[in-house]
Parts: sequence; C-alpha cells; structure tokens
Amino acid sequence: MAGTNSERELLAEGPAIILVEPQLGENIGMVARAMANFGLAELRLVNPRDGWPSEKAQAAAAKADHVIEGTKVYETLDEAVSDLNFVFATTARQRDGFKHVRSPVTAASMLRERFNAAEKTGILFGRERWGLTNEEVALADEIVTFPVNPAFASLNIAQAVLLMSYEWMKSGMEDIAATPFQVVDQKPATKQQLFGFFNQIEEALDARNYFHPPTKVPKMIDNLRAVLSRPGFTEPEISVLRGVITSLDQFQRRWPKGKKPVDTGEGKADDGADG
Amino acid sequence: MAGTNSERELLAEGPAIILVEPQLGENIGMVARAMANFGLAELRLVNPRDGWPSEKAQAAAAKADHVIEGTKVYETLDEAVSDLNFVFATTARQRDGFKHVRSPVTAASMLRERFNAAEKTGILFGRERWGLTNEEVALADEIVTFPVNPAFASLNIAQAVLLMSYEWMKSGMEDIAATPFQVVDQKPATKQQLFGFFNQIEEALDARNYFHPPTKVPKMIDNLRAVLSRPGFTEPEISVLRGVITSLDQFQRRWPKGKKPVDTGEGKADDGADG
Repeated sequence: MAGTNSERELLAEGPAIILVEPQLGENIGMVARAMANFGLAELRLVNPRDGWPSEKAQAAAAKADHVIEGTKVYETLDEAVSDLNFVFATTARQRDGFKHVRSPVTAASMLRERFNAAEKTGILFGRERWGLTNEEVALADEIVTFPVNPAFASLNIAQAVLLMSYEWMKSGMEDIAATPFQVVDQKPATKQQLFGFFNQIEEALDARNYFHPPTKVPKMIDNLRAVLSRPGFTEPEISVLRGVITSLDQFQRRWPKGKKPVDTGEGKADDGADG
Repeated sequence: MAGTNSERELLAEGPAIILVEPQLGENIGMVARAMANFGLAELRLVNPRDGWPSEKAQAAAAKADHVIEGTKVYETLDEAVSDLNFVFATTARQRDGFKHVRSPVTAASMLRERFNAAEKTGILFGRERWGLTNEEVALADEIVTFPVNPAFASLNIAQAVLLMSYEWMKSGMEDIAATPFQVVDQKPATKQQLFGFFNQIEEALDARNYFHPPTKVPKMIDNLRAVLSRPGFTEPEISVLRGVITSLDQFQRRWPKGKKPVDTGEGKADDGADG
C-alpha cells in the first residue's frame, strides 16, 4: 500500500505539526508518514532528544521524504510557534484554565476555516511519556482531545497525529461519504432488464413443473420476484445471473452429483457445452 | 497518556477486527492498542506468520491485555468470518467487481446500525506488504477505503485499524463535537460583571488623564469597551484581569523599568504590596 506517485497530486499544505521534545526517531518517522498520508507536510521539532536528522525517523517515514526533508528544528516552543496565528494543544488530561476544549472534528473544521482565511496554524503534540506541560499548553489558543475508551486511553504521538491529519483531510472534503474510487456503475438495472431476467428464470422453472399447485402459482411468482428484486442488481450483475440460469437450464451435468472425476488435465479445452 | 483504569467504563464491543496473515507481532500489538483506545475488543488472526501468542505483540499492545488475551486464531478466512452477518474489506486499490465502496464514516455508521440490530460484523485488513487478494475481498459484503493523499497513500495495518476504530467510536456518539472533558464554565460573564470591570479600568485610567482630548473621550471609551467585550471573558477571567488592574493602579514599581535588582533570595516573603 506504500509509495509516492508523481503523476498524482501531492497535497502538502495545512497546519504545522509541532512535536515537543520527541524522544524516539521511529515516532518522528511515523508522524511524518501519518502526515503525508493525509496531505500535511510541515513538521517542526522542539529540541528532539536524539538530535536531527535521524536515520531511524527516515526509515520509519516510509518514503515521506518531502516531510522529513522539510522538517525544522527549534530550541524552544516559543520559537517554534512564533510565526503562527492560531495553535491547538493536544492533551489527554483535563487542565485547569480558561481554554476551550474541542473534539478532533471541530478542531479540524476550525483549522480549515483559518487556513482558508490565509492564517498560519499549528497543532502541538507532547512528549511520548508525559505529554505537554501546563506552561506549554498555556502557549496554545485552544485544546483538542480525542474521544477515547474511558478505561483505556493510550494513544501514542504517531496515532494522535494520524487522527488529526485524517480529520484535516476530511475537513476539506465536500462530502465525507465520498471515496477516492468507486465501482463503475452501482445503478440498479432498468426494470426492463430485471423483467427479462424474471422471464428467463420463470420460463426455465415452468418447463420443469416448478410452479405447482396451480392455486399457489401467483404467490410463488410474487415471492420469487421479491427475492430477485430486493438486492437491486445492476445490469452487469444481471448479466452474470442470466449466464448462470442459461447454464443450468440448457446443459446437462457431466457427472452425477458428488462424483466429479479426477482431473487428468485432458478436459482443459472443454467448452463446457458438450452436455 | 497510557494505562487502564478499573474505575472507568471499559468499552469492549462492536465489530471484530480480522487480520489476514499478519507478519509482524509488533503490528498485531499496535492493532490491539488501537482497538482498545476506541472500545473494540474482538481480534481475529488468520494464519499469522510468526504464530500465536506473540511476545512482540504483547509488548506493543501497551496493556491492551483484554484484546490480546481474547484474540482468536483461524487457519482460513472462511472460518474466521463464518459466524458473522456482515463483513467489510479494507483496501487501498480499486477492485473489479460489484461491491459498494464506502468511506470510513459511512462504513462505521453502517456497522453501528447493524450492531444495534444485534448483527455480528467484522472488518478485514490485509497483509502488511500487499493487502488482501481479490478472492479474500470477494468474501466480504462491501469495501471500505480511506481518503488519502493521492500521491502518498501508505497506511500500515495498525494505522488503518486505528482509523476504523476511531470512526466506530464516533459513530456511537450523539454529538461528534463532544469532548470527554471540558473546562468547568465557558459561559461569558454577565454584563454586570463586565461593566464592573469597565468601571474599574476606566476610573484608573481617568485618574491618570488617559482620556483626552475631551472631544475624543466617547470614541476612546467605545473602542476600549469593544476590545474588552470581544473575547467574551468568563467570570474567572475577569477576576484575573481585575487583579491585574488593581496591582497596576494601586501599587508603585519597586524598581525603575529595566533595572530589576539581582534576586538575593531575601525578598521571598515579600507580599508585593509594600510599594
């Protein structure tokens, strides 16, 4: 599922992701990968424990090279946010204070609105072990927190960045039910196509005396048509099903049920229509 | 940010997560951790490469013991899904065929609806390197895919499981803007409290001849009140600000601007009100 593709649009805009004193290069790399998946590209590190650049980060980034190469390092959080107009702090713990707390969906939509107004924004993520200090949270405008299992709240920074990046991507979609690809045609077949299928199957069954006794025929037909209508088959699906009925109706078994001969390879050219 | 807490509700219900031939124990552990964060608990493995149980999975699961301990292993995908009523397959690639393709939001809401109707459901995730085969996708009812960066689509299985688990959690929330905690009171102060603050600050400024020339006084007061009204300060915030004004208004500087004496430790008991 990996890889960049130069023919497709590379999304690379939106809020800066700011990691405060990250410890493990692997986590920084996973953060870069999470960001790239959802179109973010601006990564800032405040005082990374093991320095920068980091081979472990590069390896974990799964070719998110544009994020890794553009990463900036700062000595203090003040410097890292100095050019930004609006900053969220992520935290899993309730903090004292006056800041609004937002869900990821709300936060992403606020960030998108500010992005559209040409503001520069950022999201702060704390250290692996204990997150952000109160002083660091105080530097942000508002707080974002995740709706986790009350008895099991254990998101690491790469997971938290993934979720915010994903919500950022969704906030830019006109329709969150949209998917990047879709089968060609999910329209149910026309009624004419469906009725042709009814006729075929009912004729084949009628020829076998399926419909009896006569008093129950209308009800049997109703039931059969209900079963075949309910799925809303598309035209290609009906085409598959008509082939199945044709095979069952027109051709005889080549062996008695349960007695399939061992395949010797000789039958490969058989067209199946020799019944 | 880690840890279980026995006093809080442990969510542990919803669709089964089914990993087809997972290779790395670390990934299985990260999947368990992702699930636990968002209230899922039923993990099924089809033919895991390195066997089961796995110490690496246990270590990466960050105490999601209830998921790891309940994990079931199957030899084939058929067996793994045999008791389920409805199954999604996750894939990043367009497939031929007749299946609907859903976004994570739509898929989660469909799974929630079926869960509420007491159906058993599951979500299939493919191998780390190349996902699900067409035959495996064919065993599912519908497809779910993620809205990723067109030129950088590189979600690993733990990330994909995290996103689906998160959407599952959100699908059960009445209000997706809700947060698990909130500051105590975000209500703006009453107008009486705000006007008290205006009076204090305007009196202190008037005593310093801030308001001049007289022709501009009404406009100056309008502007000042507009600046102080716009943030919608809460009562505790106004209380902080009134303390600031009181300090500035009532007490004199203890040293000239820019000439703070070196702290010898002797001033520690100073109450700051000796002006």
